[in-house]
Amino acid sequence: MTQPGSQLRASTRASGPADQASVRRSNLALVLRHLRDQGPRSRADIALETRLNKATVSSLVADLTHRGLVRETGRQHQRGVGRPGRILELDGREVGALGVEVNADYVAAYGTDLAGRVLVDRRDSFDAMSATPDQAIARLAQAAREALNDMGQAGATVAGITVAVPGLVDVSRGEVLFAPNLGWRNVPIAELLSKAVTPQVPVRADNDANLSALAEFWSGPAAGTPHLVFISGEVGVGCGVIVDGVLLRGADGFSGEVGHMPVDPAGNQCACGRFGCWETKVGLAVLVSQAAPDLAYGSGPVRDVDERLSEILRRADDGDPAAVAAFEEVGRWLGLGASILVNLFNPRVLVVGGYLARVAERMLPIAQCELDRLAMAGLASGCKVVASTLAFGAAVRGGAGLAVEAVLTDPTIVSHAQLRLAPLP
Amino acid sequence: MTQPGSQLRASTRASGPADQASVRRSNLALVLRHLRDQGPRSRADIALETRLNKATVSSLVADLTHRGLVRETGRQHQRGVGRPGRILELDGREVGALGVEVNADYVAAYGTDLAGRVLVDRRDSFDAMSATPDQAIARLAQAAREALNDMGQAGATVAGITVAVPGLVDVSRGEVLFAPNLGWRNVPIAELLSKAVTPQVPVRADNDANLSALAEFWSGPAAGTPHLVFISGEVGVGCGVIVDGVLLRGADGFSGEVGHMPVDPAGNQCACGRFGCWETKVGLAVLVSQAAPDLAYGSGPVRDVDERLSEILRRADDGDPAAVAAFEEVGRWLGLGASILVNLFNPRVLVVGGYLARVAERMLPIAQCELDRLAMAGLASGCKVVASTLAFGAAVRGGAGLAVEAVLTDPTIVSHAQLRLAPLP
Repeated sequence: MTQPGSQLRASTRASGPADQASVRRSNLALVLRHLRDQGPRSRADIALETRLNKATVSSLVADLTHRGLVRETGRQHQRGVGRPGRILELDGREVGALGVEVNADYVAAYGTDLAGRVLVDRRDSFDAMSATPDQAIARLAQAAREALNDMGQAGATVAGITVAVPGLVDVSRGEVLFAPNLGWRNVPIAELLSKAVTPQVPVRADNDANLSALAEFWSGPAAGTPHLVFISGEVGVGCGVIVDGVLLRGADGFSGEVGHMPVDPAGNQCACGRFGCWETKVGLAVLVSQAAPDLAYGSGPVRDVDERLSEILRRADDGDPAAVAAFEEVGRWLGLGASILVNLFNPRVLVVGGYLARVAERMLPIAQCELDRLAMAGLASGCKVVASTLAFGAAVRGGAGLAVEAVLTDPTIVSHAQLRLAPLP
Repeated sequence: MTQPGSQLRASTRASGPADQASVRRSNLALVLRHLRDQGPRSRADIALETRLNKATVSSLVADLTHRGLVRETGRQHQRGVGRPGRILELDGREVGALGVEVNADYVAAYGTDLAGRVLVDRRDSFDAMSATPDQAIARLAQAAREALNDMGQAGATVAGITVAVPGLVDVSRGEVLFAPNLGWRNVPIAELLSKAVTPQVPVRADNDANLSALAEFWSGPAAGTPHLVFISGEVGVGCGVIVDGVLLRGADGFSGEVGHMPVDPAGNQCACGRFGCWETKVGLAVLVSQAAPDLAYGSGPVRDVDERLSEILRRADDGDPAAVAAFEEVGRWLGLGASILVNLFNPRVLVVGGYLARVAERMLPIAQCELDRLAMAGLASGCKVVASTLAFGAAVRGGAGLAVEAVLTDPTIVSHAQLRLAPLP
């Protein structure tokens, strides 16, 4: 009987040259993360705290400095006898990370350097639901090129791009298998974007709600909550789940497909072809069509989602019966679906993003009330529903964060030569 | 921005006496697990493979031998020059672990020793739904006492008891917060059972479906599948979720409360007071009342669940319309709920247990078909629904396994003095 949790230290007897390179990478990562998490310190302190040997630390620091990831601050630190040590810190001003997103309503981009400066933060209306996949990819590539250019002008060369897509993504192959609200099936988006933008920068693809959950865990209003569920409210509805501080991916990376939970046997048909899916009850298009049929999707010129929502909130504030009833109805269904998530995952907090955050003041009290009534675990635990403050920018932040993580996991993906390249076209 | 996954080796500068004891415990556990996972070997091999120092290994082995957990096999092993080493193996014939369970229909017990011998495996009909909590606890205590006695006669002294309950369990306090099908609220079951049976043995409490999921992961037909969801089919329906080889517990240990997902706004009232819960569609009582109203709960003398199910299967085989229609109906609802689990957790396998395993041949094809139709992730991943072979014994096996794990995590809970005690009353 093999039981879980039996973690043994690996034997070193099979070590070979391949292992040497991987030990080097993991030690580079160890030093880099140590500097990020513990703050500026000397080589001697790093050696003491990481239990790496002093000569190794010096060699690792030289490597990281060469890659533009670490620098000396100029300050010195005296500990005991011997030479005072120079203080090192995470640098990364020349190394950038970019998240881009295509969603039903918009394309977005968010770029940072490794030091945490925000270099690009942009969202543009784009009617991806009416566009062909080629058109949508071209628009996304344009957004990525513009962002790379701006980041280049700010002195940062991008080390990695993550593209967020509202659908099932095979993360290992960078392929969107199915994105009902974009009309995409089997689109190798990472490869296509790489070709259209720059083959020099690794591109990965991920589900928008998964990336948003990471962003919420890293920097949202509930940051650091180890059991956190994020619900993305767009035209489609997705979810990303943090379990014990780690993103739940499941066997194939398809976990969190909450939008297609069958919650009403008597419900309407969904974009996926089935009936009574949760997103036919709580998606943006449903709120709009119930609250303000005159603003509904497909009923006129493309409007920005913010414009639509402002108008609907204004009508509800004025007591417009359709708008008030729509918030009541959608809020109750939001609470019902939330109760399933709370019953299954028992999170401490449920963060709603996208349009749901925008209408939180009106909708969350209704949803929380329904959640408290329906959730079993809620009896004892009291999970709070809160609105994201990252608005429609959560997924692209998560995407940039994941590209930062890739460097922190393997600093060798940043090469000195790459940093010396001219800003990309 | 603090990101997850940054695991640093802990600094040792704060080490004190408390840490020494914990290092000792973890090294004892390391050696014990190494012997279990890697099989019999010499002290020298253990030292080499665990990177512990040879003198430390000798001292740890002496301690484990004294506790009855390790013994010499008599064989010797010659490696290179020097004295040949004696071969050691996991012993544990004197150390037992017990799982007990109270469910709507029965009480059960399963006892093993650490060497893996099954010493007790028993299930008795008991109508816990009609009993008061005191009566149910008394019956459970009786089952535990009998099991301890039998295990004592076989030469094993029990080092830990786990009690499985179908409801919300606060694992840290050993308290059942709510078990609708037993009519329990706030029952400190671990403490009550400890008092009623023996205060000498630690008792922990856990949710039945969580324990069953562990048993399935350790020894069921899908053992070792890292993403596995277990559905327990009793009068109530629960679920236990293994994510990346680890049991998902959530913020308070209440995850997997699948029975009370609201799946039908127009549905019947549930034992929990709400309407349209999944267990009102797929619980044992529903199948019985739809397939064979004359055998329904509350309609006559207590019958064993196996008797009821045999009769219903016989009628379906004979083409009885009510029985056939009931399997069709319950099977479809099983597939619908399964699709929610698959969409959210993206498991590789979904194991059904309890009564659902008993009627698998008739019900699973219908459920699998509905799951394939409704699951989003299923499009690409093809999660299989399989029947447990552990029948109603999964939870008690998981309970015994957890008690074994407790010893393997901290071997110091087994004391030599304890092993020398006479068999318990």
